[in-house]
Amino acid sequence: MTCQLHKVISEIKPVSREWRRQAKDYLGRLAIPPGSLGELLVLAEQLAGIKETLRPSVKRKVIVTMAGDHGVVREGVSAFPQEVTPQMVNNFVVGGAAINVLAETAGASVVVADMGVAADLDALAREGKILSYKIDHGTRNMVREPAMTRQQARRALESGMEIAGRLARDGVELLATGDMGIGNTTPSSAILAALSGRPVRQVTGRGTGISDEALENKIRVIEKAMDVNRPDPKDPVDVLAKVGGFEIGGIAGVILGAAYHRVPVVVDGFISSAGALLAKALAPNSVEYMIAAHRSLEYGHQFMLEELGLNPLLNLNLRLGEGSGAALAMNIVESAARVINKMLTFEDAGVNSGPVA
Amino acid sequence: MTCQLHKVISEIKPVSREWRRQAKDYLGRLAIPPGSLGELLVLAEQLAGIKETLRPSVKRKVIVTMAGDHGVVREGVSAFPQEVTPQMVNNFVVGGAAINVLAETAGASVVVADMGVAADLDALAREGKILSYKIDHGTRNMVREPAMTRQQARRALESGMEIAGRLARDGVELLATGDMGIGNTTPSSAILAALSGRPVRQVTGRGTGISDEALENKIRVIEKAMDVNRPDPKDPVDVLAKVGGFEIGGIAGVILGAAYHRVPVVVDGFISSAGALLAKALAPNSVEYMIAAHRSLEYGHQFMLEELGLNPLLNLNLRLGEGSGAALAMNIVESAARVINKMLTFEDAGVNSGPVA
Repeated sequence: MTCQLHKVISEIKPVSREWRRQAKDYLGRLAIPPGSLGELLVLAEQLAGIKETLRPSVKRKVIVTMAGDHGVVREGVSAFPQEVTPQMVNNFVVGGAAINVLAETAGASVVVADMGVAADLDALAREGKILSYKIDHGTRNMVREPAMTRQQARRALESGMEIAGRLARDGVELLATGDMGIGNTTPSSAILAALSGRPVRQVTGRGTGISDEALENKIRVIEKAMDVNRPDPKDPVDVLAKVGGFEIGGIAGVILGAAYHRVPVVVDGFISSAGALLAKALAPNSVEYMIAAHRSLEYGHQFMLEELGLNPLLNLNLRLGEGSGAALAMNIVESAARVINKMLTFEDAGVNSGPVA
Repeated sequence: MTCQLHKVISEIKPVSREWRRQAKDYLGRLAIPPGSLGELLVLAEQLAGIKETLRPSVKRKVIVTMAGDHGVVREGVSAFPQEVTPQMVNNFVVGGAAINVLAETAGASVVVADMGVAADLDALAREGKILSYKIDHGTRNMVREPAMTRQQARRALESGMEIAGRLARDGVELLATGDMGIGNTTPSSAILAALSGRPVRQVTGRGTGISDEALENKIRVIEKAMDVNRPDPKDPVDVLAKVGGFEIGGIAGVILGAAYHRVPVVVDGFISSAGALLAKALAPNSVEYMIAAHRSLEYGHQFMLEELGLNPLLNLNLRLGEGSGAALAMNIVESAARVINKMLTFEDAGVNSGPVA
């Protein structure tokens, strides 16, 4: 493990128990029936714990959407062709994609990072429209060989950490993850299978919408990739290298970097949660900084949420990626911050808190 | 039935099938895997149908929070004393309540209407801080007699319609309902029981948090009120008069007025859904203008949603009222409007829509 990766992972601390307790006490005095704001109170307590204050701010928000391609698409695992990845990166840049319009409602900026798209995006990077952390033009075909080298896996993780670190130093108060990469439900299912020990068939779904026949093929492809590569569940970097993807490693890195810098991070759907599983495997404390945005329609997502021990905020039958669910959830997180920052207590509002005499 | 009530009810039209179809076609061409934005697409189609345009706007948003008191609190049905209703109205006015801070995230204004609080709120009304439509100082005790006269019930409905009409004429593009009234889960359960024929025990919950013993008492109280008053399920005004509440009638009126003026209306939790049940019973088409905000933790709410045939957007274990869940859902509605207004199609974005060759 390289020095930077090791340093970040080893220095991620649990969220302050003392600040959580203080926040819980305070929230219990707000002028509402006890607990009646449900998940908002849970979130407000988490934010206060992470930021070690009863006045946590999440105003400055950024969604990091990581793009990468996958050699395994040659096995026919996706409903869309590989050129859609750079086409969608272009759509992000012109502001016409779901993530752009949903980020607007959230008051968030979108940062697009090329982690390994199989196309030349240098012009966009030079114009400052995307970040370039390109590791290669797509991963290798994991059915035949490891998706990437161990060194590339570390680079993907460290690139994500670097992006999160840069944003944190710039004053960003709430991060979110997103993805773009044709074929990337395949490595995500493989990561879940590898880290959880669940059978491939149980954790593999239809992605962007493949047929029954194509789903059977996808399951066989992932099973073969597991067989050929034998990822070591005790070594998350090995799992990422053998059956992962550049953008998934990048997402894991963003989450680890966010946790290191004590910035809460909203985890989008299936692909982002694969990154979150890697982050948790590398640094178990990192899960305390995560907020699960939504329950994706992609079948295996429920098992990821279970492995992470997270309860998603939304259930809107989304299965798009890009960070779209995370963008929608950011408003809920902001609302939770406002609850602890701005609501009056029974005492301050002059409202009777006691039961009927 | 009075002239105004009859006119509004009889003129509420179904949402345009033709505009819904056009919106569905258009949404199917957006540069995303078909259907992958889930409920946002359903909402976008509804908004386009209501507003009869592919560019529906919901920027100007108002939450109407209706306050009223309930004679039945003398039977010990609530965990809080009646004076909390005016105290909370004051909290709304100073901006320290949940609804205020959640409305801020939604970019919505809050309009508070006194429909029948058992306290003198004239000073607030004179200062323009609340609307006064006060019908009486709380309803009568429905265990002994009808909660209100038939004339008062009509007045509650028409007041809500008037408020919605006024806001619609002012250019408000998205309405939401909310409530404040100590004891108002009791009439809400009674309305649900009366209109659905479900047993009182099945539809009665703990409200702001009463004990097992108090819950048994609450069930007996509602059963007795049903027995004494025999509300006629075929006559929604009779149900409102006998076992309802001023603010619940007001909410039903706001929903009917919104539908009449073709403004989508976000329905909050248990109390607001009781108003929605009355609105649907009076004008079945009105349900096409409703958006269910969330699934409340109050037990009977699931049955209300079932009766309404609505699928709630959020499930955050809320049980506060005020319009708090509706405020949170307004951002989702705004996101849906942005999706249909601003996203690019496959063609416009230059993205391959076809399957892999």
